[in-house]
Amino acid sequence: MTCVVGVDFGTLSARALVVDARDGAELGTAVFEYPHGVMTPEPQWALQDPADYVAALQHAVPEAVAAAGVDPGQIAGVATAFTASSPLPTRADGAPLGPVRLWKHHAAQPQADRINALARERGEPWLARYGGRISSEWAVAKALHLLESDPELYTRTDRWIEAADWITWRLCGRETRNAALAGYKAIHQDGTYPSADFLRALDDRFADLLSKLDGPLLPLGAPSGTLSPEAAAWTGLRPGIAVAVGNVDAHVTAPAAQAIDPGQLLMIMGTSTCHVMSADRLAEVPGMCGVVRDGIVGGLYGYEAGQTGVGDCFAWLVDLVGGDHERLSRLASAQEVGAHGLLALDWLNGNRSVLVDHELSGVFVGLTLATRPEDLYRALVEATAFGTRVILDAFTAAGLPAGELMAAGGLIQNPFVMQVYADVTRMPIHVIGSEQGPALGAAMHAAVAAGLHPDIRAASAAMGSLVRDAYVPDEARAGAYDALYARYVRLHDHFGRGGDDVMHRLREVRPRELAHG
Amino acid sequence: MTCVVGVDFGTLSARALVVDARDGAELGTAVFEYPHGVMTPEPQWALQDPADYVAALQHAVPEAVAAAGVDPGQIAGVATAFTASSPLPTRADGAPLGPVRLWKHHAAQPQADRINALARERGEPWLARYGGRISSEWAVAKALHLLESDPELYTRTDRWIEAADWITWRLCGRETRNAALAGYKAIHQDGTYPSADFLRALDDRFADLLSKLDGPLLPLGAPSGTLSPEAAAWTGLRPGIAVAVGNVDAHVTAPAAQAIDPGQLLMIMGTSTCHVMSADRLAEVPGMCGVVRDGIVGGLYGYEAGQTGVGDCFAWLVDLVGGDHERLSRLASAQEVGAHGLLALDWLNGNRSVLVDHELSGVFVGLTLATRPEDLYRALVEATAFGTRVILDAFTAAGLPAGELMAAGGLIQNPFVMQVYADVTRMPIHVIGSEQGPALGAAMHAAVAAGLHPDIRAASAAMGSLVRDAYVPDEARAGAYDALYARYVRLHDHFGRGGDDVMHRLREVRPRELAHG
Repeated sequence: MTCVVGVDFGTLSARALVVDARDGAELGTAVFEYPHGVMTPEPQWALQDPADYVAALQHAVPEAVAAAGVDPGQIAGVATAFTASSPLPTRADGAPLGPVRLWKHHAAQPQADRINALARERGEPWLARYGGRISSEWAVAKALHLLESDPELYTRTDRWIEAADWITWRLCGRETRNAALAGYKAIHQDGTYPSADFLRALDDRFADLLSKLDGPLLPLGAPSGTLSPEAAAWTGLRPGIAVAVGNVDAHVTAPAAQAIDPGQLLMIMGTSTCHVMSADRLAEVPGMCGVVRDGIVGGLYGYEAGQTGVGDCFAWLVDLVGGDHERLSRLASAQEVGAHGLLALDWLNGNRSVLVDHELSGVFVGLTLATRPEDLYRALVEATAFGTRVILDAFTAAGLPAGELMAAGGLIQNPFVMQVYADVTRMPIHVIGSEQGPALGAAMHAAVAAGLHPDIRAASAAMGSLVRDAYVPDEARAGAYDALYARYVRLHDHFGRGGDDVMHRLREVRPRELAHG
Repeated sequence: MTCVVGVDFGTLSARALVVDARDGAELGTAVFEYPHGVMTPEPQWALQDPADYVAALQHAVPEAVAAAGVDPGQIAGVATAFTASSPLPTRADGAPLGPVRLWKHHAAQPQADRINALARERGEPWLARYGGRISSEWAVAKALHLLESDPELYTRTDRWIEAADWITWRLCGRETRNAALAGYKAIHQDGTYPSADFLRALDDRFADLLSKLDGPLLPLGAPSGTLSPEAAAWTGLRPGIAVAVGNVDAHVTAPAAQAIDPGQLLMIMGTSTCHVMSADRLAEVPGMCGVVRDGIVGGLYGYEAGQTGVGDCFAWLVDLVGGDHERLSRLASAQEVGAHGLLALDWLNGNRSVLVDHELSGVFVGLTLATRPEDLYRALVEATAFGTRVILDAFTAAGLPAGELMAAGGLIQNPFVMQVYADVTRMPIHVIGSEQGPALGAAMHAAVAAGLHPDIRAASAAMGSLVRDAYVPDEARAGAYDALYARYVRLHDHFGRGGDDVMHRLREVRPRELAHG
């Protein structure tokens, strides 16, 4: 029994990967697209059907095992990676009472605003752990939104649980929760959730949220139980093998990319970008998403930051102009820095770090009658790189400079994008060797839960891979970008820190029934 | 002899129109496209070949007369309308020494900047007549640019003359100049050009400019002479008929649209928009293009303002997204005010009024992943309407409110665009009845020069036409636009009046060989 299975539950599909735990060799993989996709019954909403996740286990896992050509008897454990925060309401036995509120469900902004205002007013000590602002994407804001939009359903809800933990419950038949995930998304810090008193101050009916959250919190890589006969029948795996506690896709990518030492900042670059970095001490970094002890690897503080629109922004432009990524990237990459004369703000899907404001929006400055699609494309790519540099600067200013920059995710396939990031940050970029970072990272946690490696650090060393210096900054371009970055910061602060609140006013003025995005 | 011919020399083609001077009936028309079009040997440059203008006389005039089915013996006079400022260098006999610097030739911005700085320093009294800033598009700035870019050609130049006056010289064999045009484009105010002393302070070699400009200045509608035998052979008209002094296309459109009374502001809306308004007194309006006594009709002060990119901006977007005006206008017109959540600055071709800065550029704010081509289209249309409202506000603040709003030009064919303008300005828009405003206006000047009408006012009353209240503002939409306009002004001032000079820095950072626009 030297193999493990990792299952990565993404936004539109799930991927199963069979890995040799001795060396990380990827033996077989299969993808399952969710039949219901992402459901958007209202603007700002983004829902999923949890039955799709079970269907993914039923299809992708057996297919991956078949593709690997291994006997199920060789498989010692299984683990998952999930988007977060993507909570759902269930009964006490785990039966879903409604759809999952997906990570990009943004309907809870008013609730998040109230949580932040109250926390500031009361001086809640946990607020600084989240850069000073809780996101509308997170489990507590979404729970308050559920209460206020559907109080009857809220009342019937026994468990308010991340899909990451719920899918593990389905696998082993026992409810457990990932302690790190509780820290990042449910404000669990220093051993406690927000107080009942705090929750009551938000809404009288909200004080009982703790009873819907509470439960056994397990560290990363711990076994949440063993595979149940029912789940064994779904997956074709042997009952009784180890099931690791649920995981977050971005976090498990860090060991897959061997980016777990202090000061190694990993960008998981896809439709959005998540930045994770471990450090040996606690600092308060304004505008980051969260810091959690043992959040990414045991023994270190795990920091997370993010950009809500990256690949999504590029895809928007491609769709707008009727082009394609390959052609636009080729034309854009031939340009000198600054040749297009444009500056953009990459907030087409709001801003997570460092402004934590989903009602911000995108900007182009410098348009002329000669501006072409490839100019806009390059300006958007640069804007997202500038956005990453703002995050790096925030870490540096907090005394936690990133010493190394790693990258994973779908965008690492685009050399133009990656070179812009190296030039803008003036840092070499090391790239994950695997194309299946989250699934590989999940498999590492399965290996630890199954006892094949003593801890995540050992699993990462044995099973992870990294191409060092895949992209190296060009000094001349980096110098040119320094000047443009200074202008980006000025524009960023003007629209993002109160110089002109026009973005919020433009949202307000939109007729409610027509608002989108 | 009751007919006249007007010839409108546009940016890409010339149009001849045969008109019955008694009632303005348009009897026949023909268009001739310039073989050399607009030549752009370098970024910011825009040149034309004056031989194309003569070719236009040779083709369009005989074809229009043939289409009208009138005998040349019925035609009493001919007049022209031209883009301006579009000067060219010639010998003393009028033979061209080089191409025409077209109105949108923008290479002389550094020279314009120096002229403005020096005029401010010396307190030149004429500066206020141009809103405080001379444009790089105008004849004096272009002459200084010629001197400094090609001193040998400048030295050989005997006459520096507007194409509007040059084409009249070709027709009657005698050099005359339109006094109003000298006022608007060559800084001729209160009987004099800028002093030789002023010109020398710009450049020692520039003091002789006056000798290249000076010459007989004639009022609007005056005969510059009679048709020469050579020009009669070109056009098929009878030699000896009246040739009116040269005219500017936008100015002659005012009588064609019956917009010549004080306070009637006419927008000539095409690729760019020119605003002309007469008033019974002199005021200094910051950021307007110019005020000239007898500039549009005799006895009144003629004011001119402008927007450098209007239809051009819409065409840019259509080209960018691969759409078409009809479809985008239809989709955009179905939207409620504010539904797209966008705000744009319409400066893709710089800003003429009220900022007089061709290095400004366009902006979109409010972009989301749901932003569609029709959203951008509507936002651009609205931005140009807001730009017009800024100009209206400047006139009002100077004590010259526009009491009525008239429109002419190609964009009046688009009901969506026109309705947005009515709603944004909260004013009914009266629309010219003719589709050939400049050619009809030129024909009116031919009629006055030929003695068929005593003056332009009489010709306008007899030959002009106007559809009153073609577009009427909707109170609810106008109210919604008030709020958006306040935001536009704030954005306008931030980027246009020094809050953030990023647009200038973005131009500077562009590698010179790649700069375009």
